[in-house]
Amino acid sequence: MITTVRRRARATAGPTARGDGAGATVGLGMLAELIGYHVRLAQMAVFADFERALGALSLSPGLFGLLVIVEANPGLRQTQLADAARLDRSTLVPALDKLESRDLVERRAAPDDRRSNGLFLTAQGATLLAQAKRAVRAHEKRIAAELGEGDRATLIELLDRLAPGGRRP
Amino acid sequence: MITTVRRRARATAGPTARGDGAGATVGLGMLAELIGYHVRLAQMAVFADFERALGALSLSPGLFGLLVIVEANPGLRQTQLADAARLDRSTLVPALDKLESRDLVERRAAPDDRRSNGLFLTAQGATLLAQAKRAVRAHEKRIAAELGEGDRATLIELLDRLAPGGRRP
Repeated sequence: MITTVRRRARATAGPTARGDGAGATVGLGMLAELIGYHVRLAQMAVFADFERALGALSLSPGLFGLLVIVEANPGLRQTQLADAARLDRSTLVPALDKLESRDLVERRAAPDDRRSNGLFLTAQGATLLAQAKRAVRAHEKRIAAELGEGDRATLIELLDRLAPGGRRP
Repeated sequence: MITTVRRRARATAGPTARGDGAGATVGLGMLAELIGYHVRLAQMAVFADFERALGALSLSPGLFGLLVIVEANPGLRQTQLADAARLDRSTLVPALDKLESRDLVERRAAPDDRRSNGLFLTAQGATLLAQAKRAVRAHEKRIAAELGEGDRATLIELLDRLAPGGRRP
């Protein structure tokens, strides 16, 4: 039965097929068998929704992630933020510059070590992040609605197996 | 018990923690609860392995994907390729230029429509793609080894629910 369905799908393919099915009628060769292909499509779909959710606040998923980590760890060092966000220095520095120039994040002496500067949200950063979190919670609800609670947990568990260190201590 | 484990993990965190745990000791706030965060980490891990596998052939995952689709659909139009690869024109054109300048892909009259040019692999492109596919199969085996066959199918099914049109006709 599955074979029949597949054969029919292929019969509609061809150079004259309209492209409005986002390539559904064009053969994907071995791509469709690759885990990475499906992970990438899911990531693009989820990030597109995420970006729509945060667009009005001019925050990318990456900038949002940095704000969340800084809020959760006041006084964090730049190198620690890079590790936690899994960014290399050349990606982190311009992102942090952007957040500082928008007066969302600031560097100042950390309470526990006055010799070196830590990162903190500004009041404006905290306000924007609170708004952003509300938008992200709505986004997450939309995404999770495709799955249901049990499947959501299963998906996260399986994804974490692909990303060593994703959740492990 | 889980609470105890979490508390212990948090107790080791702090500004003096070394960054070699890739941020494991830095709190991630709400990020860890977001499906997009786990999808993104998995995508980065899978693509990093993919890139290592293809690095010797100077192929990115994106270029590899284009070669696979062109091979599976000889004579494909550029707009159809963009749809199938889910790329917009501004991303596809430079990628195709790269493949043409490396003599891996060529444009010529398609057998079914001599008025317009279709995309084809060159002999050199077909040879390189055959090598690349072997490397990608080894990559896929490494990735799938983290999952097992049943969980692999489950993961793909759940990911496709997040990416509308991922597999649906």
